[in-house]
Amino acid sequence: MQFSSSLLENAVNEFAKLPGIGKKTALRMVLHLLKQDTDFAEQFSNVIAKMRKEIKFCQRCFNVADADICSICANSMRKQEMICVVENIRDVIAIESTQQYNGTYHVLGGVISPLDGIGPGQLNIESLVHRIEKEKTAELIFALNATIQGDTTIYYIQKKLQSQQIRITTIARGIAFGGELEYADEMTLGRSLQNRLPVENYVSNC
Amino acid sequence: MQFSSSLLENAVNEFAKLPGIGKKTALRMVLHLLKQDTDFAEQFSNVIAKMRKEIKFCQRCFNVADADICSICANSMRKQEMICVVENIRDVIAIESTQQYNGTYHVLGGVISPLDGIGPGQLNIESLVHRIEKEKTAELIFALNATIQGDTTIYYIQKKLQSQQIRITTIARGIAFGGELEYADEMTLGRSLQNRLPVENYVSNC
Repeated sequence: MQFSSSLLENAVNEFAKLPGIGKKTALRMVLHLLKQDTDFAEQFSNVIAKMRKEIKFCQRCFNVADADICSICANSMRKQEMICVVENIRDVIAIESTQQYNGTYHVLGGVISPLDGIGPGQLNIESLVHRIEKEKTAELIFALNATIQGDTTIYYIQKKLQSQQIRITTIARGIAFGGELEYADEMTLGRSLQNRLPVENYVSNC
Repeated sequence: MQFSSSLLENAVNEFAKLPGIGKKTALRMVLHLLKQDTDFAEQFSNVIAKMRKEIKFCQRCFNVADADICSICANSMRKQEMICVVENIRDVIAIESTQQYNGTYHVLGGVISPLDGIGPGQLNIESLVHRIEKEKTAELIFALNATIQGDTTIYYIQKKLQSQQIRITTIARGIAFGGELEYADEMTLGRSLQNRLPVENYVSNC
């Protein structure tokens, strides 16, 4: 792509560094910024710079936060003795959007994956064990992706917590609502038969 | 989408204002910025702000420029007596990328479109006529999209230039290289028959 302005070219190159953004999409965004008032681009860049500079990670659960402790951990209306273990911040946002969970989180920052060189030491696992020892935790819910890495991580953490008296669960796997049986993979369908629910439970959840 | 940090939420909202970016993609970009060093986000926001503040529009052809005159108009190696009329900056970049054109441009900033309330007065048409009167222009090439609005604009400008002794042309329409005849629309195929070329011309262009 040939540019007659280096200012334009630099801006396009910056946008093109973002995930999933090619040069053409980057150009479209930059030209959009150019069309708006100067204030628009100024506010855009200020908000981004401020976010990166001032954002913190919760010292308790490693979720993103505006203060040392995130708004979920600081909320006394939420069940502080319930911890949902997730891989990253995106999973916290996904679960929060369901409005079905009223406990706290613990963001691991990844899952154990020896092939990628990620061992337990690089994840927030030690802090989770300390947190459970220190606080009165009643239940730990694993909400990790059902991959070998996710399962390994569950196994590793569960072993570490064997001496603790807490309930450890994992989110239900099965056929999605609206999903059709004939298109489901064998693994999911098989497991959903194994872990079948009494109809009373199903009806009361609907 | 539920956020536990207002800094994160604001940044996501800013990205979601860009064209073609929804909340989920915006979140992906913000989390990408969060993963990088602080420098990365700082540079990103600085380049955007600087671009919007310092970028200029060429006083001669209305292309984006770092100075009062763009690098294409300032380049004495290019044929200054040849003007290619385009709708917007994106078209300049597209033509420049072909590396087949060695003249100058004139960016109209749109096309005449009464339905959208765009008349000749809102476009850089008057300045084009002035430019042709003042400079020694040999040829004007229209590279506008083949829509009713584009054709209207060509007709309007051509009328305005009737008294001038210049060659006025438009880019060729026809079947694209690699395009298959059976899938071409009737209009394009019909016109490509009408405007057929002697084989010598075709071979010499290949």
